[in-house]
Amino acid sequence: MKKTYLHALALMLTGLLALPAAAQKQFTLEDLNFGGTNYRNMIPQSRSLKWWGDQLVRLSSDTCWLVNVSNGKEKILFTRDKLNKRTGTSAKPAEVARLNGASFPYPNKPLVLINTADQRLLINFKTGNEEWSQQLCAGAQASEWNQESRAVAYVHNDNLFVTDAMGKTRQITTDGSRNLVYGQSVHRNEFGIEGGLFWNPDGTRLAFYRMDQSMVADYPLIDVPELDDSARVMAAPAPEKYPMAGQTSHLVTVGVYDMITGDTLYLRAGNPTDRYFSNISWSPDGAIIYMMEGNRDQNEVSLVAYDAATGKPITTLYHETHPNYVEPQHPITFLPWDDSKFILWSEKDGYNHLYLMDTMGHELQQITSGNWVVMDLLGFDADREAVIISANAASPIQQNLYRVDVATGTMTRIDEDGKGWHTGMLSANGHLLVDYYQGPDVPRNINIVDTRSGEQQRYFTAPDPWQGYAVPEYRCGSIKAADGYTDLYYRLVLPPDFDETRKYPTVVYVYGGPHAHNVDARWHYASRSWETYMAQRGYVLFILDNRGSENRGRDFEQATFRQLGQVEMQDQMCGVDFLRTLNYVDTTRLGVHGWSFGGFMTISLMTNYPDVFKVGVAGGPVIDWKWYEVMYGERYMDTPQANPEGYARTSLIHKAKDLKGRLQIIIGLNDPTVVPQHAYSFLKACIAAGTQPDFYVYPGQGHNMMGHQSVHLHERITRYFDDYLK
Amino acid sequence: MKKTYLHALALMLTGLLALPAAAQKQFTLEDLNFGGTNYRNMIPQSRSLKWWGDQLVRLSSDTCWLVNVSNGKEKILFTRDKLNKRTGTSAKPAEVARLNGASFPYPNKPLVLINTADQRLLINFKTGNEEWSQQLCAGAQASEWNQESRAVAYVHNDNLFVTDAMGKTRQITTDGSRNLVYGQSVHRNEFGIEGGLFWNPDGTRLAFYRMDQSMVADYPLIDVPELDDSARVMAAPAPEKYPMAGQTSHLVTVGVYDMITGDTLYLRAGNPTDRYFSNISWSPDGAIIYMMEGNRDQNEVSLVAYDAATGKPITTLYHETHPNYVEPQHPITFLPWDDSKFILWSEKDGYNHLYLMDTMGHELQQITSGNWVVMDLLGFDADREAVIISANAASPIQQNLYRVDVATGTMTRIDEDGKGWHTGMLSANGHLLVDYYQGPDVPRNINIVDTRSGEQQRYFTAPDPWQGYAVPEYRCGSIKAADGYTDLYYRLVLPPDFDETRKYPTVVYVYGGPHAHNVDARWHYASRSWETYMAQRGYVLFILDNRGSENRGRDFEQATFRQLGQVEMQDQMCGVDFLRTLNYVDTTRLGVHGWSFGGFMTISLMTNYPDVFKVGVAGGPVIDWKWYEVMYGERYMDTPQANPEGYARTSLIHKAKDLKGRLQIIIGLNDPTVVPQHAYSFLKACIAAGTQPDFYVYPGQGHNMMGHQSVHLHERITRYFDDYLK
Repeated sequence: MKKTYLHALALMLTGLLALPAAAQKQFTLEDLNFGGTNYRNMIPQSRSLKWWGDQLVRLSSDTCWLVNVSNGKEKILFTRDKLNKRTGTSAKPAEVARLNGASFPYPNKPLVLINTADQRLLINFKTGNEEWSQQLCAGAQASEWNQESRAVAYVHNDNLFVTDAMGKTRQITTDGSRNLVYGQSVHRNEFGIEGGLFWNPDGTRLAFYRMDQSMVADYPLIDVPELDDSARVMAAPAPEKYPMAGQTSHLVTVGVYDMITGDTLYLRAGNPTDRYFSNISWSPDGAIIYMMEGNRDQNEVSLVAYDAATGKPITTLYHETHPNYVEPQHPITFLPWDDSKFILWSEKDGYNHLYLMDTMGHELQQITSGNWVVMDLLGFDADREAVIISANAASPIQQNLYRVDVATGTMTRIDEDGKGWHTGMLSANGHLLVDYYQGPDVPRNINIVDTRSGEQQRYFTAPDPWQGYAVPEYRCGSIKAADGYTDLYYRLVLPPDFDETRKYPTVVYVYGGPHAHNVDARWHYASRSWETYMAQRGYVLFILDNRGSENRGRDFEQATFRQLGQVEMQDQMCGVDFLRTLNYVDTTRLGVHGWSFGGFMTISLMTNYPDVFKVGVAGGPVIDWKWYEVMYGERYMDTPQANPEGYARTSLIHKAKDLKGRLQIIIGLNDPTVVPQHAYSFLKACIAAGTQPDFYVYPGQGHNMMGHQSVHLHERITRYFDDYLK
Repeated sequence: MKKTYLHALALMLTGLLALPAAAQKQFTLEDLNFGGTNYRNMIPQSRSLKWWGDQLVRLSSDTCWLVNVSNGKEKILFTRDKLNKRTGTSAKPAEVARLNGASFPYPNKPLVLINTADQRLLINFKTGNEEWSQQLCAGAQASEWNQESRAVAYVHNDNLFVTDAMGKTRQITTDGSRNLVYGQSVHRNEFGIEGGLFWNPDGTRLAFYRMDQSMVADYPLIDVPELDDSARVMAAPAPEKYPMAGQTSHLVTVGVYDMITGDTLYLRAGNPTDRYFSNISWSPDGAIIYMMEGNRDQNEVSLVAYDAATGKPITTLYHETHPNYVEPQHPITFLPWDDSKFILWSEKDGYNHLYLMDTMGHELQQITSGNWVVMDLLGFDADREAVIISANAASPIQQNLYRVDVATGTMTRIDEDGKGWHTGMLSANGHLLVDYYQGPDVPRNINIVDTRSGEQQRYFTAPDPWQGYAVPEYRCGSIKAADGYTDLYYRLVLPPDFDETRKYPTVVYVYGGPHAHNVDARWHYASRSWETYMAQRGYVLFILDNRGSENRGRDFEQATFRQLGQVEMQDQMCGVDFLRTLNYVDTTRLGVHGWSFGGFMTISLMTNYPDVFKVGVAGGPVIDWKWYEVMYGERYMDTPQANPEGYARTSLIHKAKDLKGRLQIIIGLNDPTVVPQHAYSFLKACIAAGTQPDFYVYPGQGHNMMGHQSVHLHERITRYFDDYLK
């Protein structure tokens, strides 16, 4: 593979300029925390790239360049100034404030799609002429544009509207409310659901979600007025529809609006009570809707095809069951070269793999296989009938890019070196791929890859943004899980002036839940910046991805079924056993910190192993799964009615009495995900038991602290360990 | 004065048995805190006494004794067992569970008034016959019984009912709700209001409050289910009608129900908007209602008489104004020997004193006067036309008992020694008085006093309940206020093994607001038990009643007008200056703690004097008076619209940035008095300013932590000082 060395000189100079240790700069939380005042300067630089068909375009705020994919050289395609001096508008053109959001929907036309404050525009960037415009709806709750019909669907004041390319707007629904939600995400964003508007390919039909949540209980969140809000004096209720495990859930149906007839119908999917409708997609001809239909138990799922013109079911193409749960997360994807075949994702062989199916419901073949998982389907090289994917086939902690021959399943790695973590962005014809690459020592490389030859063109090499700073040492390795044979990956972060003859206070950072992992082969092994800050202050940090976490296959994840936290704790205690083998770890000064599921893990560990962990900080913790939502909660725990022992065993209410060390619980007062009742109930239990956790709340914040409040939060977390562990 | 020495021997023995210091017992919070498991054993014993006309009765759970007022000797009057074997009931009599709540409404009849779980009974304790019974309303929200007519008025499901002596019940209102409140306290318990049902003397007419609060904003409190409540899963809104300063307030009117006619009318007091109706009383003949009527500005008050038969105003008897505020707190009291004259309380000469008025509205004379205040009007010696009061005429920190000749104002002290703190309970004819007495070294003495001769009969001497414990030293003294001349009283609590050559961390406990004081001549100078606990742990405690606090006259209190906290802080800093003169106070380790107004003071001091106070714990703190309620808030601060500078100057939102030391804020999640918005908004301001207070919340608790939760709270407060100040 060929590489360019444009930045080699810069790298060498950087090396020469390295300061002696004594003069090395110290990090602040403003440097390291997102929301920090210097954060942007401290993360590896990147490039904002877009495909214009098969041509590569780079965007900055004011300039758009065309990138020569053979040598990485750039030439200006247009400037923001040019767009703002555009012709073809009646009055003074409204300002395009920045180019970053631009896209290029038509491969063969020099048209840029970009918004002003109130318009969506297509501008011919060669002539400078505004070719088309569309009014944006101010305050839209959701919106989806189709590039073929140029129609936009949007939700405003809870109702669904469609504006066509000519600017004609039709209101599709009239009874929308907070009880009756149209065109927005449903099932609380589980099952891969991110939105509720689905255009067919040519933009003539719109499928949309309708969710009746009138029967769902309101969790009583409270909105405290902003301090500079002179119009509001008193705090106000901010109720959140929240179906708790085992309780009454919402009813979802799927509507279809036909642009040509103006008619709306609903898919005849039967009684929606206790069912999940997810992963909506369209047939290439735009006539059929495919949907994954699951039961409330989440132990079976069907792929059903519907006639979009009548709403009638056509056929069930696929059915999958598992005694624990089946979790569809990806819509089907049709082969661009054969409208009768599509790719289906399934974990049925134990790992997430791709299967080739036909529209008669026949499984034609398993495309990928092995004890690893497909992470993303980037697209196709249609001419040669290959699919481009990312997967962790090389190592459980890596993500690499592969070309897979659909017919044979032959898989060829096409990233730079088979190491690290690669995120791909495929061109229209699939011949070219932009590869964003981070490795443990690679801040960020961007390569342009020929997906057929595997040839690499280094386009960008980010300099080390931490040059001159006293950087900790990041180590990665694996230990055995509590089952004795499963490999678990860990990260160790050691103070910059690490001296292995010393004893360091050590903090275990933990998440531990499904759909996430902490340790991978990204820059610094994906270390969170707070770990660096803590290492600088003289702590050792240890992070272990226990069983239950993602990317390791079905059984690895499902080991925790009906008993969340139990197996995870066993594995984390294997981590502690490993720490005991490290002479530089002061095991009399062990701390633990985590957020969300990690907050649950933190309190679980503090109360189940009160003599092991001296200090803990638990953010947004689940305390009892009966207060968590139906979709996620029942998948892993079943209902409280069906699994009373599991709920009782994992509940931290009963563990409140066992708290010995210092534990600070931190929540967002407006957390709609893990509602404050969890923390409040744990405090109640502790007060009754005579134990003394500490507590803090961020008013106005949700499940995570946003913006600069994250800096405040991490100062707070740090101070707690400084106070009691150091 | 004659004294008996019944307990002298016991006291001597106690002294002889004192343990050497090394073996002295240590206090726990279970000993010292109300709600603590051993608290009842650690407070000075008392005796539950009641007057049966002019005969003195002692009650325990199972026995009732008659006390010989000449020698204190007791003989059994009846037992609980006797009442439970009573005759005159059809079925098996319901159980009287304990005698403690019994009373003796008819001086000349051997009848005891007592309740079973569901009945109010009059039992002849001589014959053991049940003479009369009345069903109790389960779940009544308020209830008031009249001993003459034996009718009871009560509120159930928000509506008002009256049941007469014969058991006939009539529903008086039908439209009661949480918006329309009948028969309960109004104006948020300010102006001395404690209830909303007022019988005329013979129980034939009932005056009652009606409060329309439909226009008052709801503060969104949240109710977290009890952990053992299996019927409720989710937290629920628990809105509290809360009129904030400057906002729309409720409308109060006064109804009169006539038992004889069955009619209800409302006093024609005019438009109730922004007016306060308080201190309702009846003329002795039960035909006229007297009421104090104040304006929203609280700078004028009128005493108005109404015809109870028509609701029409008869006359305005009295009118008082003050540029700051006038605060009526006591209903008028008619002279028992002259129905045309009554006693009015007023602070108009600068101190709370009694005035003799006639029903034509003439002020006949000032009965009491001097630079001290009348604290309670206990009753009259009608035969000799004297009034019995308690007052702090002897010293600002004492409460003594006096007989005052109404005609001449001649005042005679009638308590044991003119020291300490005496609380009186007067017999029917006013010849005898029970004097409950505490002094700095007197746990509790109970004397029976002849109010004419002043002769004392020692009835009970409580042993020192802390015998054998290592008890701190309590000192009391005065310093000058920041005005240079006003005396302020302080209490110092010193560790049991006090060594004045050492330096002690010192905590200032503060309240500082109106209607309260902390230092007086009660046992241990009224030291709060937590102070003893802290002293035992090696802290010095300092408590100073600043200007603004109670019992010192109008100008002392009103020095804080329109700028709550400012003068109070100046005075507290005089206290700190005094502490600097004490070599054993380590002024580098000064802490501060207070609750409610004291929480406001704590944060005010922490942020205005960030280099003086290192550690603070603020409970239920007011942060900005604009979030406090109309009645109390506007009295001292006027409205935010009328006093924007005052609100801005005293707001702690602007001071959040100045926090340097360690500050823990603690609130009850269900605090309906200082609503959580105060603390949340302060946290918001601190987060924005980058300062780091700590925070804790007691879910389900109100403005104060009740029961055993108080023990948890004080362990928490103590730990905070131990962590950061010790």
